[in-house]
Amino acid sequence: MSPSDASRLALAAYLAERRTHIEGALKRWLDPPPPEDRERLHEAMCYAVLGSGKRLRPILALAAYDACGGPDPPSEATLRAACAVELVHCYSLVHDDLPSMDDDDLRRGRPSVHREFGEATAILVGDALLTLAFEWAAAGGTAVVRMLAREAGHTGMIIGQARDLALADRTPTLEELEALYGLKTGALFAGAAGLGALCAQADLSRVRALHGFGRALGIAFQCADDRDDAEHPSLLATASARAGAQLSEACARLRELGVAATPLLELADHVGRRATG
Amino acid sequence: MSPSDASRLALAAYLAERRTHIEGALKRWLDPPPPEDRERLHEAMCYAVLGSGKRLRPILALAAYDACGGPDPPSEATLRAACAVELVHCYSLVHDDLPSMDDDDLRRGRPSVHREFGEATAILVGDALLTLAFEWAAAGGTAVVRMLAREAGHTGMIIGQARDLALADRTPTLEELEALYGLKTGALFAGAAGLGALCAQADLSRVRALHGFGRALGIAFQCADDRDDAEHPSLLATASARAGAQLSEACARLRELGVAATPLLELADHVGRRATG
Repeated sequence: MSPSDASRLALAAYLAERRTHIEGALKRWLDPPPPEDRERLHEAMCYAVLGSGKRLRPILALAAYDACGGPDPPSEATLRAACAVELVHCYSLVHDDLPSMDDDDLRRGRPSVHREFGEATAILVGDALLTLAFEWAAAGGTAVVRMLAREAGHTGMIIGQARDLALADRTPTLEELEALYGLKTGALFAGAAGLGALCAQADLSRVRALHGFGRALGIAFQCADDRDDAEHPSLLATASARAGAQLSEACARLRELGVAATPLLELADHVGRRATG
Repeated sequence: MSPSDASRLALAAYLAERRTHIEGALKRWLDPPPPEDRERLHEAMCYAVLGSGKRLRPILALAAYDACGGPDPPSEATLRAACAVELVHCYSLVHDDLPSMDDDDLRRGRPSVHREFGEATAILVGDALLTLAFEWAAAGGTAVVRMLAREAGHTGMIIGQARDLALADRTPTLEELEALYGLKTGALFAGAAGLGALCAQADLSRVRALHGFGRALGIAFQCADDRDDAEHPSLLATASARAGAQLSEACARLRELGVAATPLLELADHVGRRATG
């Protein structure tokens, strides 16, 4: 087994362990015995969140927490804040799939929420998950709430989605594409890593480094994600190369964290290779 | 001028003063100079919030704060928390008006957001206002965030909206109607009054009393609001009478607050008379 194989195995084990943690928490907290008449909305919320999903954003939050020396295992407050990011991600998928947005019938191999439960319920499910995200984020304190709101809101993810819709019928410039990826994907990744650092009581400069790392990771991730069905392959190749370089720089700024940052650096290596390889 | 006329004038002056406060804050905080390319979403957010609107929920939050002896004038954190409730109310109107929900072309005498800016933008505007509400609510602390999330979410306002849609094609029972009003309107009124009390550092029993008062006021308000176009007038008359009685009980529990509770009690008197008169 080469050192690179060993590190890939270690990363896989780390991701699997964190993912199990998150999966269990999401199920536990989303699944209280509901009053009879609440069932359909509640069922649709669970449908939107539980089941498959890479859980990359909450894993990133926990890995950032670990990198900043947060006590092991993470407190319930940290786990809740990490899961709040996943709720935000899930709500954004439910609303993105709506007929007036991307109009997707399938999500993770199953009918999208509006195909399964109707459009009105899908709108309410998204609203409910976004609202619940902030109830959970509050466990991490007001700084966590603020960071999540800023990165998920009209100065972050949502303006990214608005620009994505506006750019649907023309080729973006490189600058537009990079700004778009930085907002629609980078912002929530930045928020995830930043709030993980906040939960570990990291100082401001460290929170900033993790936040910047998350943003670079998100952009590289989006480049990798779009490689297969790229409408503008040469534009995407340029963006991917630049994203890879920026991610390397962000990684360099994490080296002072020592061995605790290993999962983050391996995650970056994995995503970076998918983006540029 | 009769004592009743005098009290009505005093209430009108109080409401006008608080409303001016809130209107100014909403405008100030929603209106930072935006980067050029953010304008359309931002413009639509301002369209959804600014202009007309009774601002009853944030006024209720400030009146609850005053009733609990919060220092005058309210701190910026209190004003932000109060305005957060208005953002939640505005987002709920934007999403409620959507074609797959109530399908309303007009709101407050103008085209609804999706008629003016398109459906996709309206969905994103609602999401953005809800997210921003929690950024603002965080100024009041985590208890404020939690209270707003609970009352606005799938155990409060949103389940109320889901039930409203489900009940659209049949006559509800009295119990169903009361539960519906308690959720779709009472919950956010309860949250408004409760978080006003929290911002005034009130103790738990007082927060509960204000929260209960807000809920009763919200139910009476919804009864009054539905009187003009009631599909089931005798059912609504019964519900209104019961709401009026419950509001009187909630008022009785506020008398120990003395003269500071006067605006709240006058507000209740005004709404109660509209509901039952």
